[in-house]
Amino acid sequence: MLPRSDVIVAFQGEVGAYSEAAAYEHFTGDASAGLLQALPCPSFEAVFEAVMEGRATHAMLPFENSLAGSIHRNYDLALRHDLRIVGEHHLRVSHCLLVLPGVKLIEIKLVRSHPQALAQCEGTLTRLGLPREPAADTAGSARELAASGARAVAAIASRRAAAVYGLDILLSEIEDNPNNYTRFLALTRSSDAVPVDPAESYKTSLVFTLNNRPGALFKALSVFALRDIDLTKIESRPIAGKPWEYLFYVDVAAHAADPACARALLHLEEIAPMIRVLGSYPRHVVEYPEDS
Amino acid sequence: MLPRSDVIVAFQGEVGAYSEAAAYEHFTGDASAGLLQALPCPSFEAVFEAVMEGRATHAMLPFENSLAGSIHRNYDLALRHDLRIVGEHHLRVSHCLLVLPGVKLIEIKLVRSHPQALAQCEGTLTRLGLPREPAADTAGSARELAASGARAVAAIASRRAAAVYGLDILLSEIEDNPNNYTRFLALTRSSDAVPVDPAESYKTSLVFTLNNRPGALFKALSVFALRDIDLTKIESRPIAGKPWEYLFYVDVAAHAADPACARALLHLEEIAPMIRVLGSYPRHVVEYPEDS
Repeated sequence: MLPRSDVIVAFQGEVGAYSEAAAYEHFTGDASAGLLQALPCPSFEAVFEAVMEGRATHAMLPFENSLAGSIHRNYDLALRHDLRIVGEHHLRVSHCLLVLPGVKLIEIKLVRSHPQALAQCEGTLTRLGLPREPAADTAGSARELAASGARAVAAIASRRAAAVYGLDILLSEIEDNPNNYTRFLALTRSSDAVPVDPAESYKTSLVFTLNNRPGALFKALSVFALRDIDLTKIESRPIAGKPWEYLFYVDVAAHAADPACARALLHLEEIAPMIRVLGSYPRHVVEYPEDS
Repeated sequence: MLPRSDVIVAFQGEVGAYSEAAAYEHFTGDASAGLLQALPCPSFEAVFEAVMEGRATHAMLPFENSLAGSIHRNYDLALRHDLRIVGEHHLRVSHCLLVLPGVKLIEIKLVRSHPQALAQCEGTLTRLGLPREPAADTAGSARELAASGARAVAAIASRRAAAVYGLDILLSEIEDNPNNYTRFLALTRSSDAVPVDPAESYKTSLVFTLNNRPGALFKALSVFALRDIDLTKIESRPIAGKPWEYLFYVDVAAHAADPACARALLHLEEIAPMIRVLGSYPRHVVEYPEDS
């Protein structure tokens, strides 16, 4: 955890977005604390630019979601910008039904939110018999509700959005699947590596390409397997315009400064035409609910 | 390509959706042909149910997108239902700006579509100076436009949606990133395997779990590497509720009935506690644009 007064965290979305909640949880340990300086940005690209230009010290960006998969856009932007991953945070994406203060369920005639949030709460909304209307984003639907004063409308957004816009949480955890987690990564411009604490467990994220030869991936993974370094993520991604070539996203359970991992990475350089270490950072282990 | 008169393809979305275009392209070779029976369904789950219950012969479902990543929901549903993959199709997702017949660009005051489509066309819409309003889906925004008769409104949807709802295509390929491909898989209830044609190249899709032991993945991949069978996709996915366990999605460049592949799968059964072969099918090679 970093000293909060030095930290300005850029995130994509409006005030009250899930990304902002992830920034608060990660940097202050409390999603509802108001002590962090968070900088809302209109796009993922704008978040990277804010850190590159020094308007923010950190970026907090989603890289994968347990239901929707990896967010390739942010891997692409990470490869294009010289930032370093220094932390990870798994945010439970839990939707709340928000209303103006004092409004009762029976008064609601319409629910507004981002279509993905509406879809994730389809079971609840169908049981309640409530019609839906799409909005541009979750936090925006809460902001618009607060501004409109419409007692017959509810918004679906985060708990934090309720606090920010002065709305009541009528129902919480209304998503159909509770195993909805987004993995955020914190990036910074500093070239200082995260120092190694022997009591901590680390991950290192890397991206590499391989020549199109049979067994190339097997050979690449051998540099970790033969040194007993575990993989915590592997994903291949076709490279656009090169039908037989792939990018590989790999996370290993080690710090890049760990001697075995450092040797493995040198070994991988012998095999992979392109390799980029995105950073080493303390592992954030999340307790998933047990029900599925 | 299957005889069209026997085929009823269930897809998620409204008539004119990109999934419907993928079904037409895959089964008839032409996205604008009207010869296929396609069955719109409100959710991915409903698509699986339609095939399980015999209301459709095939499901056409998105499994991954080149920008957004794998669609885990459909992998989950594939594991839960006894359907078999018999085909793949890569659809170029290309957005069009649709208007009522005869409407000119200068008349448009508002653009409506799904927020993801609006975001993918952000550059174009900003250059045109057009405000946006979210809609529940792309094809729905076209249908609503046709029904409303609003000359000041445009919708962003597929070329096929224009044909279906009698709208003009004012601008095409308005997406900022042309490398937007969705990989669809065709599934069917038939237990007949796709027969092997020696002139054709095949893929086999499988899902497996591994025990949490160092090097387990390396050992699992050795069953293919040591037999010179190429992987065309690999992805790990954490299993909800089991923080150290993973599902692996793997596609190999071989038919499961190919002797080397059949032996590799038997070998993998010695290593993987759970293994499910989702199907073998002819490979669909797409020519990506060269510009990125």
